[in-house]
Amino acid sequence: MQIGIIGLGLMGGSLGLALQEVRARLQIKRILGFDSNPLHAQMALSLGLVEECVDFASIQACEVLFLAIPLDGIVQVLQNLKPTPHSTIIEIGGAKEQIIDAIPPSLRPQVVASHPMCGTEFYGPKAALRGLYQNKIVILVDCQDCAPEHLERAKDIFSAIGMQMVKMGAHEHDQHIALISHLPHVLSYALANVVLSQESPQNILSLAAGGFKDMSRLSKSSPIMWRSVFKQNRKHVLEALNLALTELQHAKDLLENQDWDNLEAWMARANCLQEFM
Amino acid sequence: MQIGIIGLGLMGGSLGLALQEVRARLQIKRILGFDSNPLHAQMALSLGLVEECVDFASIQACEVLFLAIPLDGIVQVLQNLKPTPHSTIIEIGGAKEQIIDAIPPSLRPQVVASHPMCGTEFYGPKAALRGLYQNKIVILVDCQDCAPEHLERAKDIFSAIGMQMVKMGAHEHDQHIALISHLPHVLSYALANVVLSQESPQNILSLAAGGFKDMSRLSKSSPIMWRSVFKQNRKHVLEALNLALTELQHAKDLLENQDWDNLEAWMARANCLQEFM
Repeated sequence: MQIGIIGLGLMGGSLGLALQEVRARLQIKRILGFDSNPLHAQMALSLGLVEECVDFASIQACEVLFLAIPLDGIVQVLQNLKPTPHSTIIEIGGAKEQIIDAIPPSLRPQVVASHPMCGTEFYGPKAALRGLYQNKIVILVDCQDCAPEHLERAKDIFSAIGMQMVKMGAHEHDQHIALISHLPHVLSYALANVVLSQESPQNILSLAAGGFKDMSRLSKSSPIMWRSVFKQNRKHVLEALNLALTELQHAKDLLENQDWDNLEAWMARANCLQEFM
Repeated sequence: MQIGIIGLGLMGGSLGLALQEVRARLQIKRILGFDSNPLHAQMALSLGLVEECVDFASIQACEVLFLAIPLDGIVQVLQNLKPTPHSTIIEIGGAKEQIIDAIPPSLRPQVVASHPMCGTEFYGPKAALRGLYQNKIVILVDCQDCAPEHLERAKDIFSAIGMQMVKMGAHEHDQHIALISHLPHVLSYALANVVLSQESPQNILSLAAGGFKDMSRLSKSSPIMWRSVFKQNRKHVLEALNLALTELQHAKDLLENQDWDNLEAWMARANCLQEFM
């Protein structure tokens, strides 16, 4: 089996590393890569993320094709892809409804829509990490619409690289992920911009401890990637953002009214998170 | 030298552990503890955080007295404290203006106002951690108002337990800390409450990866402790919260208007944080 990875950044590059470790188990002949940025392709090759970089025409011949590019790119590539009739296409975009809607009907059975719940704030080939996918969750979305042989192939690969699979519909996925991933990114970007807009951010930032570091980490994420996530999951992100604005406005009202009992109750309610994770 | 720690939770308990390790260097005879909750005192003792627990009257006889309790408690204790004339009182509250204003003038030269920039989301004696203070920053606030011998004593102790000292005025401290610590807590509490208010939070939370875990960690912090922080730093927390609301409203407008270029620019601006930390 030849596996092709389109997009050799954090996700695609780490996938290349993960697949190399299960080569025997999956009987992988070759791990090929493609990146529209020739510098990234070169870098991925010299970092050993993939074994060979080929052009877009050639990578389509692979039996398994991963799409590990920003969401707008996935939509575009799906329109233009000419895979072999037996190829499995696995896209790993972070929002699903628009991507799935954009799959040409003739291609639909071959496409496995998935979302690996892992990543870091870093991006590009240098951000690739060994073990990124290990013991993480991958959401398989709208599985009923892809052919069993392609779904099985995708499951074999995700299982081999150590992932736990969860099935979900596209709408539910996008709603949940807006809350658990997209909203945290918006909040982190906002926090960073608040501090950076101060007169001497360096004086303030020199005091940062673990709390601020955790809360601002996501604000270092790729604006290009996140632009396309926010674009494609706009409706649900707006819903989540409205909920956050309501909570923050509530906290503000309690502070303004010096309503310390209810502010304490608001925080105690948040403490319940400990029961779940 | 006898050192007394009032409050044997995360901060006071970890301090007990840290002081035990530098006992010889600081010529510490005994590390005593007091906690208004008898169960906490007992727990601190059995965890070896302090060597003996005494009553409030007895702990005041120590040459060095740490106040490691919620901010409202610090204000109260400072009103009632009857230390020896040579005792150094080191309070470690997370907001400074109100505490410093509350120091009785007769006591002022003996009180060192400090803020160690470390902690975790856990609280109580069981949360005490060896090494919590090591290599962390401690802010010494309004040092000009305490007597040199007390300031030197406090510096010797902070230096012995591995802390880096920064001096600052109370107003500047409270402003900076509202941005770097208090606002991140408000955002984290809000995020947790957004998800917990959903119909099936457990389904959503089962998908949580590193991003959400980091962003929600602070929401597990003690509501009692944070109630008093928000109360005492209300003005600056409200300012910081308003800045965050403005940023979030801006992001919302961009999403609503589908202004992807400016949304990308907003995120790219946040990325500049990498230049500082």
